[in-house]
Amino acid sequence: MSGPASIDINCDCGESFGNWPMGADDAIMPLITTANAACGFHGGDPQVMRKTVALAHENGVAVGAHPGLPDLVGFGRRKMDITPDDAYAMVVYQVGALKAFLEARKMTLHHVKPHGALYVMLHDQEEVAAAVAEAIHDTCPVPLLYWPAPVEMHALPRAARKLGIDVVGEVYFDLGYSDEAKLIVERKKVANDLGDVARRLRRFLSEGVVESISGKAIPIVAETICVHGDGPNSVEIARTIRTVLAEEGVKAEAWRGSPPGNRQRAIA
Amino acid sequence: MSGPASIDINCDCGESFGNWPMGADDAIMPLITTANAACGFHGGDPQVMRKTVALAHENGVAVGAHPGLPDLVGFGRRKMDITPDDAYAMVVYQVGALKAFLEARKMTLHHVKPHGALYVMLHDQEEVAAAVAEAIHDTCPVPLLYWPAPVEMHALPRAARKLGIDVVGEVYFDLGYSDEAKLIVERKKVANDLGDVARRLRRFLSEGVVESISGKAIPIVAETICVHGDGPNSVEIARTIRTVLAEEGVKAEAWRGSPPGNRQRAIA
Amino acid sequence: MSGPASIDINCDCGESFGNWPMGADDAIMPLITTANAACGFHGGDPQVMRKTVALAHENGVAVGAHPGLPDLVGFGRRKMDITPDDAYAMVVYQVGALKAFLEARKMTLHHVKPHGALYVMLHDQEEVAAAVAEAIHDTCPVPLLYWPAPVEMHALPRAARKLGIDVVGEVYFDLGYSDEAKLIVERKKVANDLGDVARRLRRFLSEGVVESISGKAIPIVAETICVHGDGPNSVEIARTIRTVLAEEGVKAEAWRGSPPGNRQRAIA
Amino acid sequence: MSGPASIDINCDCGESFGNWPMGADDAIMPLITTANAACGFHGGDPQVMRKTVALAHENGVAVGAHPGLPDLVGFGRRKMDITPDDAYAMVVYQVGALKAFLEARKMTLHHVKPHGALYVMLHDQEEVAAAVAEAIHDTCPVPLLYWPAPVEMHALPRAARKLGIDVVGEVYFDLGYSDEAKLIVERKKVANDLGDVARRLRRFLSEGVVESISGKAIPIVAETICVHGDGPNSVEIARTIRTVLAEEGVKAEAWRGSPPGNRQRAIA
Repeated sequence: MSGPASIDINCDCGESFGNWPMGADDAIMPLITTANAACGFHGGDPQVMRKTVALAHENGVAVGAHPGLPDLVGFGRRKMDITPDDAYAMVVYQVGALKAFLEARKMTLHHVKPHGALYVMLHDQEEVAAAVAEAIHDTCPVPLLYWPAPVEMHALPRAARKLGIDVVGEVYFDLGYSDEAKLIVERKKVANDLGDVARRLRRFLSEGVVESISGKAIPIVAETICVHGDGPNSVEIARTIRTVLAEEGVKAEAWRGSPPGNRQRAIA
Repeated sequence: MSGPASIDINCDCGESFGNWPMGADDAIMPLITTANAACGFHGGDPQVMRKTVALAHENGVAVGAHPGLPDLVGFGRRKMDITPDDAYAMVVYQVGALKAFLEARKMTLHHVKPHGALYVMLHDQEEVAAAVAEAIHDTCPVPLLYWPAPVEMHALPRAARKLGIDVVGEVYFDLGYSDEAKLIVERKKVANDLGDVARRLRRFLSEGVVESISGKAIPIVAETICVHGDGPNSVEIARTIRTVLAEEGVKAEAWRGSPPGNRQRAIA
Repeated sequence: MSGPASIDINCDCGESFGNWPMGADDAIMPLITTANAACGFHGGDPQVMRKTVALAHENGVAVGAHPGLPDLVGFGRRKMDITPDDAYAMVVYQVGALKAFLEARKMTLHHVKPHGALYVMLHDQEEVAAAVAEAIHDTCPVPLLYWPAPVEMHALPRAARKLGIDVVGEVYFDLGYSDEAKLIVERKKVANDLGDVARRLRRFLSEGVVESISGKAIPIVAETICVHGDGPNSVEIARTIRTVLAEEGVKAEAWRGSPPGNRQRAIA
Repeated sequence: MSGPASIDINCDCGESFGNWPMGADDAIMPLITTANAACGFHGGDPQVMRKTVALAHENGVAVGAHPGLPDLVGFGRRKMDITPDDAYAMVVYQVGALKAFLEARKMTLHHVKPHGALYVMLHDQEEVAAAVAEAIHDTCPVPLLYWPAPVEMHALPRAARKLGIDVVGEVYFDLGYSDEAKLIVERKKVANDLGDVARRLRRFLSEGVVESISGKAIPIVAETICVHGDGPNSVEIARTIRTVLAEEGVKAEAWRGSPPGNRQRAIA
């Protein structure tokens, strides 16, 4: 049994707003292969988006859209009771705005990854999920959704696949997993032990599993590693991941799709 | 000497916001050939943009972007001291957002027409104009700027032409002209005399001139008639224009470009 | 058994925003005794608030605050998952802003009446309700809450009374009631039959009951009649109410409080 | 000739927004005597305002309002072409919102100090200045304006004095002065030499002068020292100022007014 030949590394970027910086985009961008750029509704603004796309371009990083709810003061983290029509329109608007910055640099939108409370709502709100899937379908040159593995559990990835949208599973090494393979999001970001990150990544690469916080090994299909840019040692974690990948002979590169059938065996 | 075989009719549309309606888009859309859609910064919102594009689509109307300053409460009518970088980014963002709604319907962005105080600033702010021209160049499939004729007078159309952007001149029959061919914008919209509108339009079609408020005939090169949707008798004016065009055998259709050299003689 | 000597009539006002008008404040203001002024989060803006307060002042109308969720594009009608701390701060902010316009005219804030989805959330979100009650307590010179009768049913009026806030019950004649005394809010406003409004108002004045849509008479304790300013025949309804009150010898005046014990017999 | 018995130290605070922190309020608050709190238009939000007021309260710091233009993404630093009516309403709104948080803690609004581009516009826009002076007059319990000394040079302090508003002059030791006594604002904040700050402060206390960058001694009447919270060594500067004041026997305390005639001799 052998690990994947290559893997993607993605990170949320471009979440500064006006005079308020956020994250460590300059330091993290050289270490990732795809960036999820905020689109102005929960963070980011037109100038930030232009700079984020430029920074990604310089670093050879592919760019996806990271649309959120229209709630700057809440950073898109407060659920809102929106209709499917609202959801469709707000995703099309944000993805379109980002695409224009990409096209200005002859770049192509790579994927869509919903942010914050919108992402949470898309776990189980079937009608909103169907609308967002349609928005992704209608705006992406090659429709691609990033979603935490196992992707089968939630409404948006299911709705996306119905429309023929490729769903790329994410695996996290700076968050914990429950025994039910659910990500455990801490309210306050804490530093992660780098040795532990390296060990869990190696196990994922060789065995295709993540460890739950109780120690259970959970098989997971994931084509991209998601790292955070705003934790206390985010940059160190990303560097550790790059080092481990290099040692294991796994190439870090943006997801480029794969022939049908090959996908499920990607990490087998 | 004969008039043009066809002419475009454009109108600002989609300037409602959330629960607040504005304009008479439903009534005006069947009477025009191109719509300038607000993009969310001065008016419009994602749902309004989606509906405006749908309404244009149903009526066979081409859609251009109508970007403005980020000032909802001032309806984009208060000048702001923005940098060229600000201007570039805010136009790319807004045009991109609109393009996504168009692409979702397999439509193509037709042109760009700046709104309100941004439009006024682009009369003489050379650096901001250069940045906006670049934004138009970077986002439009076939870069096209709508601007009141005579277009040579102002910074943005000059900057646009330097980048190879086609500039389409607008003529107005619901506003007056000064002897220097400047549009006279009234703070409060008043009803226009329909007979007078018809007479002035006929004169423009046959002689290629507009009349100033002092009665002077001013030669003007214009390929599109701009009508307003929010005056007391806007819809009647648009109907009058359509009637006159029909009587004069001039086809109303969206500007589709013309071979080099042919342009300046369009109304000659 | 005799009706009340006087009654209050309140209406939501000042919900225009920037260039977008809403409602018929000029026509409705002379017909009411208290106005609930929007405070900029769901509608209204600083200039609108100043004008609304001035218009109320000229008409001898008392002004209460009508705070909403921070969601202009959704007109404050989309529930948001806010914390009690969020709720406290957003109500204090909005009430304070309105108070300053009142104080500039030597007027006093009269009451608070939550708007839209915030109002709906306050039916049963106990912790958010406790926080809003505290905000009312901390900002109002004489804390007063307006809430649809029967007020005992809901979280905010209960929390308000615990803090010693006087709760004024509202009765509606331009909306229907269910058999459980719940207001039936139509998505699209329809015109009300004026004769029916008059008849139901007379019955309320003489018997202290409202009629449910099935015809059931429901006893209700209410000190203010709420009218809407944005229905198809809002102004006519308000005029009808004034006429009936005059005919019945009931004075229309802003709620001024009443001695303990007297309150429950107000309409007895 | 002897220095002042006491002096005020003020700092802009509460300019965080939602999830985006700004400044070092926790560290600076114990070192100052008055805080200028952002009011939500250029920075700050309801929750931030509540926390800023609480922090000031705990530290015995008086709080003034720091209103700005409605331009979050530009941090209120882009001039806008507003009318006097706009200016009046936006200042009343912001000051009122802040006052409510103060009143909730039984605190009193201390002063008003305009922010950013609004402040710059108030140097010479006489009509806007008159409107802002009126707003201060209409909202402050004891109308008080903070403005860089020499205050006679500019439109707002002149307009304020006409309305009987007390104007408190600010002196800066973390910014340079031109020979014409104008503050030199650097685009990028640089660290200040602490020894130099101490020396210039001592000279101000003993001689009533500031030094221009060319070394010229400029007599200045100022009752408050303004420090910045966002420079590279802001907290060290504030500590240095407190140390020098203690050594010179000058008490640091919020401006509490002074008998007529005494003011001009405050530093004589």
